[in-house]
Amino acid sequence: MLTLSEAVRPVTFIESVKLREHLGLDVVVATETFQHTGSFKFRAAYNLASNVPNDEILSASSGNFGQALAYACRLVGKRCTVVMPETSAKVKIDAVRDFGATVDLIDTNVIGRNERVAQLAAEMPDAYFASAYDNEYVIAGNATLGDELATGDFDAVVTPVGGGGLISGLATGLRRSGSNAEMYGAEPELANDASRSFKVGSIIPNEVEPMTIADGARTISLGNLNWPIIREHVSGFIEVPEADIRNAVKLFFSLVNLKSEPTGALSLAAVAADTDKWKGKRLCVVVSGGNVDPGIYKDLIG
Amino acid sequence: MLTLSEAVRPVTFIESVKLREHLGLDVVVATETFQHTGSFKFRAAYNLASNVPNDEILSASSGNFGQALAYACRLVGKRCTVVMPETSAKVKIDAVRDFGATVDLIDTNVIGRNERVAQLAAEMPDAYFASAYDNEYVIAGNATLGDELATGDFDAVVTPVGGGGLISGLATGLRRSGSNAEMYGAEPELANDASRSFKVGSIIPNEVEPMTIADGARTISLGNLNWPIIREHVSGFIEVPEADIRNAVKLFFSLVNLKSEPTGALSLAAVAADTDKWKGKRLCVVVSGGNVDPGIYKDLIG
Repeated sequence: MLTLSEAVRPVTFIESVKLREHLGLDVVVATETFQHTGSFKFRAAYNLASNVPNDEILSASSGNFGQALAYACRLVGKRCTVVMPETSAKVKIDAVRDFGATVDLIDTNVIGRNERVAQLAAEMPDAYFASAYDNEYVIAGNATLGDELATGDFDAVVTPVGGGGLISGLATGLRRSGSNAEMYGAEPELANDASRSFKVGSIIPNEVEPMTIADGARTISLGNLNWPIIREHVSGFIEVPEADIRNAVKLFFSLVNLKSEPTGALSLAAVAADTDKWKGKRLCVVVSGGNVDPGIYKDLIG
Repeated sequence: MLTLSEAVRPVTFIESVKLREHLGLDVVVATETFQHTGSFKFRAAYNLASNVPNDEILSASSGNFGQALAYACRLVGKRCTVVMPETSAKVKIDAVRDFGATVDLIDTNVIGRNERVAQLAAEMPDAYFASAYDNEYVIAGNATLGDELATGDFDAVVTPVGGGGLISGLATGLRRSGSNAEMYGAEPELANDASRSFKVGSIIPNEVEPMTIADGARTISLGNLNWPIIREHVSGFIEVPEADIRNAVKLFFSLVNLKSEPTGALSLAAVAADTDKWKGKRLCVVVSGGNVDPGIYKDLIG
């Protein structure tokens, strides 16, 4: 069985002169769109699947964690069941199935993800339940991306935020690898629970699953394990309007030749909205993933 | 001034499990879509701009060489004029201008590129005329990509072909770096002059500028300097129907998260059309560039 560092594809750094001149910033793109299964989630999923003793793993995911976990379980020879909202991107649902996992589709207006997971967990007592973000193996897996970013000598790192698994993993990796880069989270204005939580100083959930185009950020709240790491290491959160998310996907297309999913473009959207904030800093924008339905993507670049 | 190896961005290798399983092949994508200015052409352009003694450079290009040369000239402080067909992708025309070069747009039904270049050369006697492919600096610049591919230990390399600058450069780099990988060129069926030339054993031009969607391959013929290198090192050419080019762009989008321009996808199209040919080989498909108008791209992935 491959070790985590053998299994993971290193992040791809891109310094696009067109993007740098468009923004007037010393900005480097760090993209996980070419990571196995198309998003950073494979780092977490492989670390989890290869380390838990159970032969069966159960999870809930809007898609990227699902396909990452499905592929990781296949690599290490374990069974996998993924609960997905039926509103998830079709490419993501198909990919989870193609990697050999069982997909359990739910209507989130009828039953919550957690509720459905609890039902399934009762039916599968030997399965390990894996949160897509609130899990020590997930954070440790994502920390490998922080280790890699530490080589870039950045003053600030901006990253998309959903449940907080990525930003807490990045912080863990960056700090243990000696980087003191400021860390910022970018989340949809429609799903601004991290921003609100950070201001108040305790976890505040969204009232309902937010229907932002950034489907990777349709989470109810930050995770309990992510929260203390975020409080200690994150400098702030930036709330991104839907129109800015769309525009950032288009900027990546036009200026970087990069296919990003809407969630992945949150970081660029946050930076582009207020370039003065980043002047004079060596800046890294993290693109978390690239899996997006062609129908949605066509609309975004049009 | 940066040396060539300092100025060039290393090629990005991608091993996509989805693509490998879709094709049933041991295939690695080597993409130059993140090279400076979005295509491999920067390698040639920088080598040329930094080595010729002239302060002004004149060229003709359907776009990618134009913007690469424009940017390279800016980096080394030289003036640049690029003759472009008015049918070139709009993003490419705009980019050449944005990098500070003079764009000379022509209607190729009224005047040929070579004719217009001759007119301009007479007006600018001190300018160096740079062919986008038939030039020793161009081949030597592109050879750096061959050096990089040699590290991949490939049995076969498939690459898009227009005027032959890329494939002759690749051959030069691969061989001097100790690789004996078989080399194949992929060109549009509508612009099959390389294939016809290779069969006959001498350069045969296209009758007219071929209106393939692969706008980087709208060349009249292979270059004289490229030809002997091609004859010595290339194993064959594959003619790609337009529909296959379109489908390959879509495959890159769906399975690799890669934004390719139509010309860049010629190599994948050639491989996908006859997978039996490549069984048992460690295969590299070269993606030459990613610059494509959003309007065209939307249509391709739809």
